[in-house]
Amino acid sequence: MKLDILIENVQVFNSYYKRFTTENVAVIDGKFLYIGKRGAETFDACKVIDGTGKYMVPGLIDIHLHIESTMVTPETFSFGLIQNGVTTIVPEPHEMANVFGIKGVTEMMKASRDCVVDMFYAIPSSVPATSLETTGGAIEIEDIDKLLQTGEIICLGEIMNYVDVISDPTCKTNQILNHIREQYPQLTIEGHVPKLLDLDLHKMIYKGVDSDHTHQTIEGMEARIAAGMFIEIQEKSMSQEVIDYLIEHDVAEHYCFITDDVMTDSLQRRGHLNHIAKKAIQMGMSAEQAIYACTYTPSRRMKMLDRGVIGPGKVADFLLLSELDTFKIEQVFKNGKEVYDARSAYKQEVTPKQFPASFYESVKLSSLCKEDFMIMTDKADGYYPCRVMVVQDGSTFTKEIIAEMEVNKQKVNWEQSQYGLIATFERYGKNGNRAHGLIGGDIIKNGAIATTYSHDNHNLLVLGQNGRDMEIAANAVIKNQGGICVVSEGKVLQMLKLPVGGILSEEPLELLAQQVEELRRTLADLGYKHYNSIMSISTLSLPVSPALKITDFGLINVNEGEVVPLVVS
Amino acid sequence: MKLDILIENVQVFNSYYKRFTTENVAVIDGKFLYIGKRGAETFDACKVIDGTGKYMVPGLIDIHLHIESTMVTPETFSFGLIQNGVTTIVPEPHEMANVFGIKGVTEMMKASRDCVVDMFYAIPSSVPATSLETTGGAIEIEDIDKLLQTGEIICLGEIMNYVDVISDPTCKTNQILNHIREQYPQLTIEGHVPKLLDLDLHKMIYKGVDSDHTHQTIEGMEARIAAGMFIEIQEKSMSQEVIDYLIEHDVAEHYCFITDDVMTDSLQRRGHLNHIAKKAIQMGMSAEQAIYACTYTPSRRMKMLDRGVIGPGKVADFLLLSELDTFKIEQVFKNGKEVYDARSAYKQEVTPKQFPASFYESVKLSSLCKEDFMIMTDKADGYYPCRVMVVQDGSTFTKEIIAEMEVNKQKVNWEQSQYGLIATFERYGKNGNRAHGLIGGDIIKNGAIATTYSHDNHNLLVLGQNGRDMEIAANAVIKNQGGICVVSEGKVLQMLKLPVGGILSEEPLELLAQQVEELRRTLADLGYKHYNSIMSISTLSLPVSPALKITDFGLINVNEGEVVPLVVS
Repeated sequence: MKLDILIENVQVFNSYYKRFTTENVAVIDGKFLYIGKRGAETFDACKVIDGTGKYMVPGLIDIHLHIESTMVTPETFSFGLIQNGVTTIVPEPHEMANVFGIKGVTEMMKASRDCVVDMFYAIPSSVPATSLETTGGAIEIEDIDKLLQTGEIICLGEIMNYVDVISDPTCKTNQILNHIREQYPQLTIEGHVPKLLDLDLHKMIYKGVDSDHTHQTIEGMEARIAAGMFIEIQEKSMSQEVIDYLIEHDVAEHYCFITDDVMTDSLQRRGHLNHIAKKAIQMGMSAEQAIYACTYTPSRRMKMLDRGVIGPGKVADFLLLSELDTFKIEQVFKNGKEVYDARSAYKQEVTPKQFPASFYESVKLSSLCKEDFMIMTDKADGYYPCRVMVVQDGSTFTKEIIAEMEVNKQKVNWEQSQYGLIATFERYGKNGNRAHGLIGGDIIKNGAIATTYSHDNHNLLVLGQNGRDMEIAANAVIKNQGGICVVSEGKVLQMLKLPVGGILSEEPLELLAQQVEELRRTLADLGYKHYNSIMSISTLSLPVSPALKITDFGLINVNEGEVVPLVVS
Repeated sequence: MKLDILIENVQVFNSYYKRFTTENVAVIDGKFLYIGKRGAETFDACKVIDGTGKYMVPGLIDIHLHIESTMVTPETFSFGLIQNGVTTIVPEPHEMANVFGIKGVTEMMKASRDCVVDMFYAIPSSVPATSLETTGGAIEIEDIDKLLQTGEIICLGEIMNYVDVISDPTCKTNQILNHIREQYPQLTIEGHVPKLLDLDLHKMIYKGVDSDHTHQTIEGMEARIAAGMFIEIQEKSMSQEVIDYLIEHDVAEHYCFITDDVMTDSLQRRGHLNHIAKKAIQMGMSAEQAIYACTYTPSRRMKMLDRGVIGPGKVADFLLLSELDTFKIEQVFKNGKEVYDARSAYKQEVTPKQFPASFYESVKLSSLCKEDFMIMTDKADGYYPCRVMVVQDGSTFTKEIIAEMEVNKQKVNWEQSQYGLIATFERYGKNGNRAHGLIGGDIIKNGAIATTYSHDNHNLLVLGQNGRDMEIAANAVIKNQGGICVVSEGKVLQMLKLPVGGILSEEPLELLAQQVEELRRTLADLGYKHYNSIMSISTLSLPVSPALKITDFGLINVNEGEVVPLVVS
């Protein structure tokens, strides 16, 4: 019998018994055939690997993430994942869908097909997430049907607006849920249900939403598992008490690890799901349990029964580790073929312009001028109480405060105040909407930032301490068809280009990671204080994240779900 | 909120934590909505049940069984199941398929639709199981496609001929397996792989066959689980050491309990899957673990994610037990409606003639005469060594012995010998095949038995100690269009009618159970010594069960898979 590979005398992870045993492993036609004591006397292998002293574990599987969070194409993402041992993912192209609608999804799927990593897509279910913003596209029920007909979809992505689902039987999301449960009863439906408990939680599950990947507490997690939810643990949920709970309770089937959003530099420097596994082990979880939650349970959740296991008939995606506790990856194999070796050069070849031409022409805005950064009002001259969005380090939630502002000749005199300006400009050529607000807190102390990488609408978001710098930053982003620009004293300090839909780069991972790191430094130098400044800025336009945000509809009181005026009347 | 039912203060089984907690349970639209502390102050229920002192567990789910083993229609079977707390089953109509081909399957499915029990069908994958017999029908790849298009199929039923699968890449079963894995990669494939180990076992799993319900030993079971098989434990596998293994190892996800074949009287007197659960508990398994293996894991194996659990959104199939350890069922609910109460009368109403007219005319044989029970030969007068099939109590395997038999005027003089005659007559009007053999061992000492309930071909099988009784028994079965007839001294002692395809009765369960019990007694009175005499007789024609069997092709050496002559030359 002619094998692809025979790995001899290796410590193999058995997912069913959650234990390592020393075995020989035979791979044929890209799948595992045999795990046991037979070796060269039975098999004739093209390649024999001595696995002595090594640990063989299934390729890691991440079932909830957004590639756009890394600002790269699927090809670059795949490159970044493989070196970290991740061989299968379930991306949800929520941002590309907000920019391009269904075409954003199908083009991401197309761009994923030739990647080394297997990518099975989640349909963005909440695009747009609110009716308080103008987006480039939307995902309607008929789009969902079309996507499901491709056969490349693995689940309905996170249902975000749980408040509507529970309270409004006729809302769009309930229409989607009813449609899915009727027409595709076996389709996995992913959820996003922070803080829900008791009857509200059970109502959400009753509707078919039976996973949660938001921040977990012990109480919330126990209530979710007991009610039938599958828990997807991301790094921010990894408190010591949560990890201890998972270790001590017989709930291994009911959770997995995921990454959700990984920034470019973090992918390149810290890793991906392997970083989570390592961290779990460092926090006291057994390597067996951590691996189980990065391979077996995620594959089961998504009904990917052909993988996540080193067993007969399963896809031969696997890692060879030289150390278990530090999760030190030596080699990575996909479909039985070596795709990474830590001891050899690992270089990225970038395929430019993978997307349709229109994807590189998505910022439909003419140049802005200094008037665009004035806050106009119909108030008479005087002082007025105005809302200010306050950025806080450690959170993507903002606070609202009220400050007295001077109005002079129908302009709010923000440049002379202690606050900055935040403005957003609809950029899809749909309605020319724009909105202005005041911003304070841990932001830059001088200069300006402009970006089209602004969740979820990805309109042009500009904030700064003077109109001139804001104008320069905004126009640089417009000219480059998207990106993030930082300007100070009339000078462009940095222009991170994101030409694909204004949100993705086509640079190689290493280069982009460097640019992102520089960007963080530049922002810090200008005084932006936040553990993740880029995420902080890009969520200032996210109208599902409390408390005061801005969209092209105006200032949004998120908790009330309504547009509020700048001047409190 | 208007509920169907509110069950208050009941000990509810939580499948995710495998524990009982005291809760209130709210049911709406046939599904569980809520399990928790809220009660009448929140919900307005049509019916409130005081659950104090009771245990609430999910309806039992049996994912591997053959209704034909009980010789009843789906309607009667459903009646029998409900009183035993079984609310969902996966029947494999292997026998009806052997008699009628695909129509046998579709008509069983049709007859199941209005049953209280939910029946999701397995496609019989091995019909016929060998090429050494004439059956009424066969299941080909195109039949499988047609059945899958109905949307009512849940899996491919047990792959029986593992020897071919492993050794012959082009055999029919491998064609079926390849087709299924290509066209329906998510379809569950059930297996029947007694004794396989190591490479052969792994090859079978590689082909997609990843469950086994045959007799388990510790070694075999551990090897199967480690290689990714799901184990379906039937009563004969329930040795103390197997049960102890399941208790002591963390393998709860990898097995369930099933019944496979339950005789009519056993269903009525002992019960069904509830009997297995009770027995497991008696053998030392916790009630929680036993219930888990009769509800949660079988539903997961079959991807029936809407049931098997008392949780929000799940089908409200549940039992109320008054005692946990004896599994004493007080009430049974299906889709939130009470369908059984142990304290009230539970009566069966039979719908006669549910099947097409042709199903009642399946025995296409003219009356037989005494010549049909002579063994003719071309040998000259003298004594010849002949094969004898020897029945052994405790097994459905026979033994082959060689005995000297007198040949006189071209007839083997069996009536004067110490052996009986066994004969089979093809009864589908296809080729008029017939075969004769000698039989000994623990069989009846006088009289005759004739039956069309003879696995898998269900041709007319007749065995006895004299030709006259055999003729009467055979003709009674022919006249009644199928059944089991026992004759002694020219008198019909019993005629159990099985008019549907010659294998199913339409009598109510209680009546049929009585008839079956009487039949057993009659057989025992005539000297048949076997713990399950009916099963013993009906498998004498089963050419996949060792060692010497008989089909219309002749005597079958099962281990060699070939027809062998009566006279050893």
